[in-house]
Amino acid sequence: MNKFDTMLSKNKIKFINSIKKKKYRELSQSFFAEGEKLVDELLLSKIQITDILSTSDWLDKNKHMLSSDIEITEITDAELKKISSLSTPNKVFAIAKQPELRYEKNEIQNDLSLILDNINDPGNLGTIIRIADWFGIKNIFCSNESVDTYNPKVVQASMGALYRVKVHYVDLETFLPQFSLSENFKIFGTFLEGENIYNEKLCSNGFIIMGSESHGISEYLKPHIIKKLFIPNFPGDIKTSESLNISVATAIICSEFRRRT
Amino acid sequence: MNKFDTMLSKNKIKFINSIKKKKYRELSQSFFAEGEKLVDELLLSKIQITDILSTSDWLDKNKHMLSSDIEITEITDAELKKISSLSTPNKVFAIAKQPELRYEKNEIQNDLSLILDNINDPGNLGTIIRIADWFGIKNIFCSNESVDTYNPKVVQASMGALYRVKVHYVDLETFLPQFSLSENFKIFGTFLEGENIYNEKLCSNGFIIMGSESHGISEYLKPHIIKKLFIPNFPGDIKTSESLNISVATAIICSEFRRRT
Repeated sequence: MNKFDTMLSKNKIKFINSIKKKKYRELSQSFFAEGEKLVDELLLSKIQITDILSTSDWLDKNKHMLSSDIEITEITDAELKKISSLSTPNKVFAIAKQPELRYEKNEIQNDLSLILDNINDPGNLGTIIRIADWFGIKNIFCSNESVDTYNPKVVQASMGALYRVKVHYVDLETFLPQFSLSENFKIFGTFLEGENIYNEKLCSNGFIIMGSESHGISEYLKPHIIKKLFIPNFPGDIKTSESLNISVATAIICSEFRRRT
Repeated sequence: MNKFDTMLSKNKIKFINSIKKKKYRELSQSFFAEGEKLVDELLLSKIQITDILSTSDWLDKNKHMLSSDIEITEITDAELKKISSLSTPNKVFAIAKQPELRYEKNEIQNDLSLILDNINDPGNLGTIIRIADWFGIKNIFCSNESVDTYNPKVVQASMGALYRVKVHYVDLETFLPQFSLSENFKIFGTFLEGENIYNEKLCSNGFIIMGSESHGISEYLKPHIIKKLFIPNFPGDIKTSESLNISVATAIICSEFRRRT
């Protein structure tokens, strides 16, 4: 039987507010997801949900989906507004456990993965996770300084893709040398002075390194990159925007890699 | 000589606050742009700037760039914070006149343009304008119900591309039939049941219609679309995100069109 409450306790409000901060998310290994779409997807995933806080109409429709160890709190719209981080809260709020993420070196060596070097903007990280999901990229490696993948804005922007794509945080300097480069496993990076991606030979395994929005790819990573790529602007001879948004550039690059595989 | 003030008047604050709303932007035909990057680009454009409100260090460096009909107000960081719509205001705030935008039917008939059907999210519109700029798309046509291109969040996300790309608001139902379709001018749209864009014959002129984030392409537009396109997910046989973000999809599609021209 589910533990069931019809009152939002002060302790729960306090806990929810605490895990809006990275430090407390890490301590409790928790995060939250909001709104029908994100909670529906969470229920379909293997991630452990600990709490559902929801209005009665959502509960009436979805109660049968909730495993017995989930604590349920029926709340009003006003209470939802109190805990929500959205401007227009939407029926349901779930608290879940951060899954333990591991990767096998062997699996990565035979796959295409993304590397994000100091990505800061949560909206961009969420969008990139969604792009990775679409293009069958199962692992993203972020430098330790990057924005936390369980930041509420990342969760929101990923639209549920976060439950499927594994986002690891690593020290890129020690991470990269583990892998053996070959004709079919290369490290790619994007640079304004790179080669036209449309004409370059790509391969189906390897790493694509995306630099930060403001500083590009860090100096210490550059020696690892075998092939520098560039998305050409059009027609190429007139002044346009200096760069594309990082999630937009990631999308075009992933599309090019997958088109040719 | 520039009119020069060292005090931020109540009237100016009132005016700035008013043009955060679309209604008053339209009445005054004004908009604003904030921060060094966006104002630098504005100064390089042909758009008429009426006011610069800036901290003294920005003014010291840039005063020589300001034409004599611009009203200058030197303000403190605290005053900047008062008028800014950014969470971290950045040195300078410019008020400008919305340029008059026209298009020639002939020019459009011989070019590739984007059509946005009820786009609502200002961040997405701004990002799409930046994508259009990168890929040499000079005109975007939005349905009248779409978010206003001078919304501060659109201006911000466009990163200056807005000064180069023309964004028109039209009644799409009467707009589209003006153009003659041919082998080299087609109307494309994206649909989940569309054809794999990587294999389809594209052409260098025409319209690419992007549907709204929540409702896709409107029914009344569908009969106009000659070719339905789809960005295939990878590997194609497993469940992934249901869709890509609209600006991400626009980026991949524009890249495909330009790659082949």
